[in-house]
Parts: sequence; C-alpha cells; structure tokens
Amino acid sequence: MHLGIRSNAALRSIACHSQLNSCPQRFSQKYSKMDETIDNASYIVDGVREKLMNDWKILQHVFKLVEKEDTFCANPELWREQKIVDFMQPDELKKHIDLTIKENETSTNSDIEQICQQVIQYSVKTSHGRFHNQLFGQMDPFGLAGAWITEALNTSSYTYEVAPVFSLIETEIISTVCRLAGYSQGDGIFAPGGSSSNMYGLVLARYKRFPQIKSTGMFGLRPLVIFTSEDSHYSLQKAAHWLGIGADNCIAVRTNAKGQMSLDDLEAKIKAARARGHEPFFINATAGTTVLGAFDDIAGTADVANRHGLWLHVDACLGGSALLAYKNRSLLKGLERANSFAWNPHKTLGVPLQCSLFLTSESDLLARCNSIEVNYLFQQDKFYDISYDTGNKSVQCGRKIDAFKFWLMLKARGYGKYGHLVDHAILMARLLEQKLRGRPDRFRLVLEQHEYSNVCFWYIPKSMRVQSSEETAEWRARLYTVAPLIKERMAYSGTLMVGYTPLSSRKLGNFFRMVFTCFPVLKTDELDVILDEIERLGKEL
Amino acid sequence: MHLGIRSNAALRSIACHSQLNSCPQRFSQKYSKMDETIDNASYIVDGVREKLMNDWKILQHVFKLVEKEDTFCANPELWREQKIVDFMQPDELKKHIDLTIKENETSTNSDIEQICQQVIQYSVKTSHGRFHNQLFGQMDPFGLAGAWITEALNTSSYTYEVAPVFSLIETEIISTVCRLAGYSQGDGIFAPGGSSSNMYGLVLARYKRFPQIKSTGMFGLRPLVIFTSEDSHYSLQKAAHWLGIGADNCIAVRTNAKGQMSLDDLEAKIKAARARGHEPFFINATAGTTVLGAFDDIAGTADVANRHGLWLHVDACLGGSALLAYKNRSLLKGLERANSFAWNPHKTLGVPLQCSLFLTSESDLLARCNSIEVNYLFQQDKFYDISYDTGNKSVQCGRKIDAFKFWLMLKARGYGKYGHLVDHAILMARLLEQKLRGRPDRFRLVLEQHEYSNVCFWYIPKSMRVQSSEETAEWRARLYTVAPLIKERMAYSGTLMVGYTPLSSRKLGNFFRMVFTCFPVLKTDELDVILDEIERLGKEL
Repeated sequence: MHLGIRSNAALRSIACHSQLNSCPQRFSQKYSKMDETIDNASYIVDGVREKLMNDWKILQHVFKLVEKEDTFCANPELWREQKIVDFMQPDELKKHIDLTIKENETSTNSDIEQICQQVIQYSVKTSHGRFHNQLFGQMDPFGLAGAWITEALNTSSYTYEVAPVFSLIETEIISTVCRLAGYSQGDGIFAPGGSSSNMYGLVLARYKRFPQIKSTGMFGLRPLVIFTSEDSHYSLQKAAHWLGIGADNCIAVRTNAKGQMSLDDLEAKIKAARARGHEPFFINATAGTTVLGAFDDIAGTADVANRHGLWLHVDACLGGSALLAYKNRSLLKGLERANSFAWNPHKTLGVPLQCSLFLTSESDLLARCNSIEVNYLFQQDKFYDISYDTGNKSVQCGRKIDAFKFWLMLKARGYGKYGHLVDHAILMARLLEQKLRGRPDRFRLVLEQHEYSNVCFWYIPKSMRVQSSEETAEWRARLYTVAPLIKERMAYSGTLMVGYTPLSSRKLGNFFRMVFTCFPVLKTDELDVILDEIERLGKEL
Repeated sequence: MHLGIRSNAALRSIACHSQLNSCPQRFSQKYSKMDETIDNASYIVDGVREKLMNDWKILQHVFKLVEKEDTFCANPELWREQKIVDFMQPDELKKHIDLTIKENETSTNSDIEQICQQVIQYSVKTSHGRFHNQLFGQMDPFGLAGAWITEALNTSSYTYEVAPVFSLIETEIISTVCRLAGYSQGDGIFAPGGSSSNMYGLVLARYKRFPQIKSTGMFGLRPLVIFTSEDSHYSLQKAAHWLGIGADNCIAVRTNAKGQMSLDDLEAKIKAARARGHEPFFINATAGTTVLGAFDDIAGTADVANRHGLWLHVDACLGGSALLAYKNRSLLKGLERANSFAWNPHKTLGVPLQCSLFLTSESDLLARCNSIEVNYLFQQDKFYDISYDTGNKSVQCGRKIDAFKFWLMLKARGYGKYGHLVDHAILMARLLEQKLRGRPDRFRLVLEQHEYSNVCFWYIPKSMRVQSSEETAEWRARLYTVAPLIKERMAYSGTLMVGYTPLSSRKLGNFFRMVFTCFPVLKTDELDVILDEIERLGKEL
C-alpha cells in the first residue's frame, strides 16, 4: 500500500538533523557518521504509519463482531436462551482474558478481534430484556447510533468552532427541556452524570446567595446547610464534602410512609439549623428516589423554600423522564417553581450512558457563576456568535458530546412516544405489584404501591412460609439473607438480573428492587417470567 | 415480523385491569365498557415494540454512512482535497439541518440516515491530518474500536457486578500507570476529563491535611491556599471556586522565560501567604502548559513542597504522555515524588475523548476520602471480592467506561510504540520550529524552542514585513489581529485548523498554537504544507 511516505533513510536524516539543529543542507547527508545516534525509533514510527490505513479496518471487524455476538439481544424470543452474563469470579476471569499490558506487544486485527470477542462474551448484556439491575436498562437503538457517530467524530462540547452542529443541538435540547419544565428564561448544561448535575445545583445556589465565594471562598461564613431526605441519593453528601460544606451539614430529613420527604420535619430542621447559628441555603427535593422511586411533594417543598428564602433544587435524575409522560406528568407537579433540577435521560428513557442534564430557571446565572477568562479557548474576537461556545458555563474543560445521541432519539420518535413509553414502564410496575399480590405466600411488597417504575419486594422461600405470628425478628433476619443468595444464583445462571438493597431509613434488610425502563418494552406475561425465575432460583433455600 | 407480542386487545384489557386494581378474572373482559377509559397510548407503545428489532438495523446504516462519508479521513493522500469542516455561521447551519424537536415526529431509518449524513457533513473532522486546533488530534483506530464496543455494552464503572471485565481493566491500567510513574503503592481512578482529575488532587490533598472537612466543612478554618503557575490551566481556578476555596486563594506564581513556574516566586508566595495567616496546602506543577507546552521543574517543586509540608500535584493532563516516551521521559523527572497527578491520554496519545486518569501515590487515601456508605450499590454482603467495586472511590455514581478503549490500544500496539510516537510528535514540533526559522521574514516564534509538541508562532503578512526598528507598538497591535483573520479563512476554506491564543502572562497578543499528537503520524514535508497554507490564506492581509 502506497501512502506517500518518505523512506526510512530520509526520516533518519531528519532525526539527525533535529538533534544537531543544523542547517537544511545536512538533509543530504544520508547514512553519514551521524547514523550512530539513530536508534530504531523511526523504523517503529514508520511501521505504525504504514499500517494505519489498514488499522482503520478494525472497525469493520468490530461492527461484525458486535452483530455476531448479538450484543443487544434484540430478539425477545431469544431472551430465554441468551445469557445476560457469563459470570466468573475475578480471579477466574483473569485466566480467561489476558489483561496485562506490555511494552512490546503487537497484535494483528484478528488478535484484537479475538480479545474483543472475549470482552463482549464476559461483559453484562445490559440491553438484554431481563436486565433490571440498575436504574438504566436497554438502550434505544437510535441512541446507540448517535453515540457511535459522536465517538466517530471525536470532539468536545466547549466551542462552536470544533463542535458546530453539536453546540446547536445542545442549545436546542436545553431550550426544549426548559420549555417542558415551565422555565421561560432557563438555561442548562450537560454534565457527566447525575452526581455532577446535583453539584451544579449546589454551586449555583451557593453562588446566588454568596457570590463572593467564587473569589474568596467560604472561610468567613457561618456553616452553610443543605436539606435533603434520608432516602435521597448519596451524591448530595459526596457533593457536600467536595464543595467544602461537609457531610454533617447535609441534613437528612425524615420520609413519610410513601418515601416522600416530610415537610414538617424539613421545616423543623431548617429552624433548628438557624437556631444554632447555621445558614440554610439549599433544599433538595427528590423526584424518584433511588430505591423506592418516591417523589417528594415539589410544590409543597417550594412553599417551604419560599418561606425561608432557600434555593430549591430537584434531583429528578431518575424521575425527570416523567416530564414527557402523559398519565404521570403530575408526579413532577411544582417543578416549574424549582430553581434548578437534574435529569438523567440515560436512566428511564434508554439514552446510552452518560446523558445527564442540569437545568436552572435563571438564564444568566450559570454563565456568571462558572465562567472565567480563558483566552486560548473562549476568545472574544472570534468570527462567529460566541454565545454558542457553551463550554465556559461548565466546570469541565473538554466535555463529551452527550446531547447528540439523545437528540437523535427525539428526532427518530418525537418526545411524545417516550412519554407513552414512560407511562408504559410505570404501568408495568403497577402490574408487577398486582402479580406480587397474587402470590402472597411467596412474595411481599415493601410498599403497597410505589409511585414510579421501581417495585421493591421480598421473596419468601418455601421453608420460610409461616403464620404471621411466627414472623419473628429471627425470621426477618433470615429473610434479609435471601436476596443476596438468589442474586448469586442469578449471576451464575445468567437468566435474570434484578438488584437488591437494604433501606436503612426504615430499618429494612435486603429486598429486591426491580426497575422498569422504556426499553425493553415489556409485555405482561414477561412479568410472570421474572417472578417464576426468582421462584425457580430460590426454591431450595 | 413475529415478535411474540400480545394483541392490542389483550394489552388494552391489561390497561383496564391495572386501572381497576381488579382480580385476574377481569382479563377476559375484552372490549368491555371499560374501553372508554382507554386512549391510544397502548397502540403507540405496541407500535414502538413491533418496530424495535427493525430499529436496531439503523446501526448498519450508520456504520456504512461513517465509512461512506470518510469520517476519519484515513488516507493521507486525500487530505489536500478533503475539507476538515464545511463551515457555516450558526444561523446558516440551522437552515441546513432541522434541529427542532417535536412531540410527534416519526422518522424512517432512511430519514435518520439522512440526518446523520448532514450531521457528519457539517461537523469538524478531528481525525483529518490537518486538524491541529486542540490538544487532541486524530484518534487511534483501535481506540475508536474500543469506544464503540463500550457504547454497545452500555454499562457503568461502579461495580464488578455490572462491569466485570471493565473493572479488571480499569484496575490493570491504574496499576500499570502507577508502575510507570514510580508509585509503588499508588491508586487512581478515571475521571470525566482533566478538570475533574485536578479537582480530585485538590480534594485529596485537603482531606489528607484536614480530614474533618469531609464531615464538618471548611467554615472554621483559616483560608486554604493553592499555588499554581500563571500559565497553568484554568481548571485550578474553577476548582478553587467549586471547592469553596475561592479563586483569590489560587495564587498565580510567575513563570520564567521558558514558561516554567519560578520556584523562587513560589517560595516567596508561600511565605507571604503564611505571613498573612493563611494556610498553604497544595502546589500544582504543570507538565505541559496549555499554550506553550512548558514543563515545570517537578523535582525542584517537590523540594519546595517538602520544605513547606505541602501536597504536590502535577497537572500532566497534556504532558503525561511523556511517561511512555524514550527520548523525552525526562520531562517528567521527579514525578515519582508528587503526591498525585492527572493525565489525559485523550490528548497526545489519541485515545478517543474522554480518557483522563487521576493517580495518587498513597494506596488507601482515595477510598477513605471519597467513600460513604451506599447500601444499594456497594453492598458489603456480595458474593465476589468487592475490592473490584471501584465506584465508591469516585465522586460520581454512574461513570462512563473510559478505560477499555485505552486498554485496547495498549493491547494492540504495546505501550512502547506510543512512547516512540510521542517522541516523534515532539520531534515534529522541533522540526517545525526549524522550518519557521527558515522563513524568518514570514514567521516568528514565541519561544525559540518549546519543550513539548506545541509550537507557538506569529505569521507576518507581506504588508507588515519591515525593519525591526519599525516594529512599533502599533505594528504589534496589528500583528495580533492576523491570526484571527487567518483563522476565519481556515474555517471557510476547510483546509487547515490551527488554534490561536494570546498569552496574558507575557502581555502577548494573538499567535498560532500548533499542536502535534501521536496521530496523525506526520512526515516532514507535511510541515511545509502547513506553513504554505498559512501563507496562502494570509497573503492578501
């Protein structure tokens, strides 16, 4: 293959040339005494260059491999026989894939293909219809199409200069989501996950209240205090640590029977913080808690926030997808009154990971809060409208293009369809509850009815099916060991993946948390398959 | 296509069933009076489900399209005729691509293909051999292969449970990089970009010195102070803001003629901060500054840090790739003495964006600093070695798999080859300097010799070629307008992309910053092409 590449000899003379800082005439001194300073580096570089066009062909192999391995488990009829995971213990897995990285390793495209085959084989097929282990599930194919194009174009979200189309798309999505949320003057940014998006909310709220913190820090201030429910996501605590506020100043508010933040307890804790001379500034309401999928009363929380002059942020990372829903939009009632919210379309909607949005109702604040003078990137003397250079609103510099895959999905189906799919996922959750109630000796719900697409329940093995009077503390302690045991069997059988968790706010031990997402689009008889499989795996316990 | 899906009628009866919370017998009441409560939602959901297997075929179209559009500009012989970007002003571009998102939109796979074609057409081809606009350049094909597989498997880096292979791979890369850096007991994590990685350094240093900040915050403390050179990356200032330290407490240390942090000024400023009652705790040394590519004297900075008991972090986001180099490894001399460093293999090495590593020399600290109790994700009663659940060391929850694409590159070529490619990129930079010196009337270097793969220079248009005595302040002011004008012409011609920037620490106006990366693997005559093209674009200025 002719690539128009100079000969090794020429390259070697260039290397000499460089080392000597000599004049151009020296270029003609091929094979001179300076050869002794030459190592084989230029031969190696040459080799890489000559092979490079061929290397690009690896993409064809990879594409065929992804298809051949049926990575997406696209056909529901095959779910029964396809393993979600070919589980191995870490030490075992290390024997199957040579993980070591070496200084001198040369692989052919066929070697690489083989390695990739192994990686796919031993990875979890999260798009398998029986994967319900996390808050995300199967991808939307259009999302993956967008993700592949994003990767192929390999650019960064900071400037219109290097991301013209993607900058416009980010702006379009943010303005659409603001409109759907009822933010007439809003602004927003894509962040690398929900923890980051929640952190944006905290930083913005703090900046709004104490803009001087941007320059002088928090040292002179009374302790700033955050309020969030005991069932809310741990990212608020981690953020309190990182932002210098401290996890102790992230006050856990009690939840009610449905898992919602108690507004009475919230108000009492705000007053108590003030009474001890602290400075409340931020309330986080959760729209879709991680375990129970509970929605805090956003409108009621907004009333409390107003009364006390606090910033209201909504962690809608999970439940934000209800923005698009028809039957379940009311779960987010009051969202338009929040100062900011976070939403991860990569959870319920099936956008490939990562896709997280931070939105705020105030148009200018994000830019004022985060921008600084950056002459080499956000030059002010550019030849286009620099309002599309969104990067300075971010705390990041380089930033992955997370907008396009989501936009492509919305172009493919319209956001209304996702609304119906969200409703359907929630409907499936309600139907599962019914089915669980239909097997009362074998299953027990944690909540009679959950609000979103999570369903939490215990499985009661045959040996534990007793009169309610016999359900002692010991009985419960044993019950809490069941989910981890079945979980292990799930992994080895590869037939089903459903997460389990305890819930310390209710002093409850391990139970299953089944999560429905827009994809796979399940049918009711598939709910029976899930319960039957848990029974099968747990029958000898 | 038969997907084994229930009939609409059956689905409708399920929907009724759900609404009524009725007993299973009701399933037989098809077409009953409850039909009036049914809307067309289930038909829409049905439609999505029935079409889903066909939707996955979009990936074939996308793959073919990426090839057809020659997205990677893989053949160097075609670079002269291929545009890097088909530039349009934002308002113009909006007319060419319908960006709007609608509630009810239905696109065929062929519509989507057309949209994707437009997106590719109007995006910047960052893998084109004439793209030298950012600190990143062309991708390594094996990196993209890894990225596509990562996307196809759509999982998160937090637990071995959902990312068995990727968890092992992350651990393997971190231990290899620790070894290369001389950290015998190190640890690390992948972060979403260099700004985040630098923030990890700050948080870890702060935690080490004042562990109580994790729980009680920084309120009682004297102002904490950070030291970093005036030429260092803006992420340190942004981090100082976010972490509650304040940008004023991020002290800019002067740089010397080569762009390195002045150790005398550093020491003086540490003492001055102490004298005013502040609390120095962190020095950032930069290995590869953003504009000049200068390397601070890490070993010398380590001496200062030791003398004053401060944490030494190295922002090696750009220059960390010299870790692998043979001829240029000494740029990082002393790195083994740093407490932590950040490195973005997505810059010089050509790993697809984002790939950023944070490393620390202390094995346990990252986990102690960032972990909190997270019962639903990092359960302690799992059936495998939970030391592979790396997620709790992170400030994120869900975390993109950034390790695999890098690992696949290293498997494909061995890290030694990248070392030679890094040396080659630096060699090309030195050769460009020579060529610039060879055209003294037309070009002028900002530094006689840069240290890394950046080369900064001015172009002097014909009308400005004067005696040095005539190079007045007005002349310089005019010179500083040249790069933006040529940059605009670059964009419209699509033939070359090289960034420009001023440098306020030296009171210098706009100049070009040309950056070499491992890919494309350039030849010397291509350096002439770059300079010739700048001359062509600027000839009438």
